[in-house]
Amino acid sequence: MKLLEERILKDGKISKGNVLKVDSFLNHQLDVSLLSEIGAELKNKYGDCGITKILTIEASGIGVGCMVAQFFNCPLIFAKKTKTINIKGDVYKSSVESFTHQCVYDIIVSKDFLTSDDTVLIVDDFLAKGNALNGLIDIVNQSGAHLAGCGIAIEKAFQGGGDKLRSKGIRVESMAIIEEMDCENGSITFGTRN
Amino acid sequence: MKLLEERILKDGKISKGNVLKVDSFLNHQLDVSLLSEIGAELKNKYGDCGITKILTIEASGIGVGCMVAQFFNCPLIFAKKTKTINIKGDVYKSSVESFTHQCVYDIIVSKDFLTSDDTVLIVDDFLAKGNALNGLIDIVNQSGAHLAGCGIAIEKAFQGGGDKLRSKGIRVESMAIIEEMDCENGSITFGTRN
Repeated sequence: MKLLEERILKDGKISKGNVLKVDSFLNHQLDVSLLSEIGAELKNKYGDCGITKILTIEASGIGVGCMVAQFFNCPLIFAKKTKTINIKGDVYKSSVESFTHQCVYDIIVSKDFLTSDDTVLIVDDFLAKGNALNGLIDIVNQSGAHLAGCGIAIEKAFQGGGDKLRSKGIRVESMAIIEEMDCENGSITFGTRN
Repeated sequence: MKLLEERILKDGKISKGNVLKVDSFLNHQLDVSLLSEIGAELKNKYGDCGITKILTIEASGIGVGCMVAQFFNCPLIFAKKTKTINIKGDVYKSSVESFTHQCVYDIIVSKDFLTSDDTVLIVDDFLAKGNALNGLIDIVNQSGAHLAGCGIAIEKAFQGGGDKLRSKGIRVESMAIIEEMDCENGSITFGTRN
């Protein structure tokens, strides 16, 4: 998606440790019109899949997830990272290793909201090693729902998570795919898949 | 807002400890069309205030915040609850006591995104004692931005936070105001303000 690539080049900042900082438009301050364009593009790609639920993970997936859900006229579910006193009853649970926060945490989704009748599109802001997506896919599998695929804003392809999922036959559509980025000179090389 | 009151009566569940569970449409599974109606209503109320930024707090504020930001054609900023490795440089910081999670945490907003040129509408899913709002208001004040007011989905008026803010001259518009709720018989009494 040209619009997102241009925005990354304009406002993204590369930090040490393969961190791409896009918090001026994607995960601290959100450009909702850009997120809406991502929603429209994912509707183009997955519009004929019979999606009944969008699934993402808190916190930074919620923004893009909401905008995508609007285009599919269906609810957004966000997986929660810890068990709070507000969630009762049975939950699907998986474990995720966080690249950003350098820890392992549990994610949960209430069994009330995901069943074998659902067809799910998983959405997230970033795909790097694929840890969050693997946790979400695990939860979709536990529920017996059909996974249509994944819709990602920015895939850091050089970290391998996306291609590993594709090699397992899982459909992954990323709006911007970064093949290389260089912390020293700030250069970013985009690529394509399919 | 009749639509939200009806939805609370239909799908809300009251638990012990004054907890209103609305996670089927507001803070685990999100009904984005309902959130969009809330956005439209807040646009009616604050449309002439020159809002330049919507400010909320992760995680469950992000959904309603995104939908509100769409109507104001401006970015959404969500305050983060812990300092991650992705946030560098100067931040505004405040402390919040969580009713839901029974703990105290810091919230931060990058100084890059909020300045004295901004006019801010604070948005959140719930208002109970007002702890989260007070933290967000503190951050707006630190930035020197103008606070237009607060837009809340559900105010639990019996916990006093909303009226305390109003008595300080802060404009608070809540889409549903709960005067009383009864855990025993499940009854909910709505009210109005102004």
